[in-house]
Amino acid sequence: MDDTARSRQAAHAYVDSAERRDWDTFSTLLADDVVYEMPQTRERIRGRKAFLQFNMDYPGDWHMEPRRILADGLHAAAWIDARVGDEHQDACIWFDLSPEGLITKITDYWPEPYDPPAGRTHLVERY
Amino acid sequence: MDDTARSRQAAHAYVDSAERRDWDTFSTLLADDVVYEMPQTRERIRGRKAFLQFNMDYPGDWHMEPRRILADGLHAAAWIDARVGDEHQDACIWFDLSPEGLITKITDYWPEPYDPPAGRTHLVERY
Repeated sequence: MDDTARSRQAAHAYVDSAERRDWDTFSTLLADDVVYEMPQTRERIRGRKAFLQFNMDYPGDWHMEPRRILADGLHAAAWIDARVGDEHQDACIWFDLSPEGLITKITDYWPEPYDPPAGRTHLVERY
Repeated sequence: MDDTARSRQAAHAYVDSAERRDWDTFSTLLADDVVYEMPQTRERIRGRKAFLQFNMDYPGDWHMEPRRILADGLHAAAWIDARVGDEHQDACIWFDLSPEGLITKITDYWPEPYDPPAGRTHLVERY
């Protein structure tokens, strides 16, 4: 298996094991010193243990389904359809991986809906 | 050149030509019936001509620099550092490509900063 195949497998397993609350599998995907960053809140979590706890404690009956997963060498990206009850939000996750296929860094974006600016209605439709 | 290499080239050229306001090059990257979607505002633009106009008209002295570009078969993704003056915002762009390497769909996310929720300060640091 080459770097891209290992990265792809890890990104799929990350989403899948989190969705299944299979924390044993989830944990094996992470490097000991994994770093998780949320640039929107400028929060950072260091280390497998704290990051695992963060996920296990995350409130709500959340679910996530991959819209698309890309792998490219020691990088991967996941475009996620996340739901909590009737609430839906997309997420964009960027992964860094080690040559052994462990996830060393995760950068997580949760874009929120907003009102479109004026002045471009002649070019756009709403859906 | 295989699909991944063509997709990579197109994603790099998209960011680079937009940054340089090289609209001739930008235009050649797009399929005639390209679709551009912004899920946060639920806006959609159809067709090369309208999408080109949208970009040419986009207000402000904006600049974009790739943090990371991934390509994987007929898909690509770009993680962008965008700036307007002193204002900075990251973007996540997902591309669909044709076998000829033309961009057929662009899905664009612009995640905004927000305040971190309470209850996880024991796990996180701020940066």
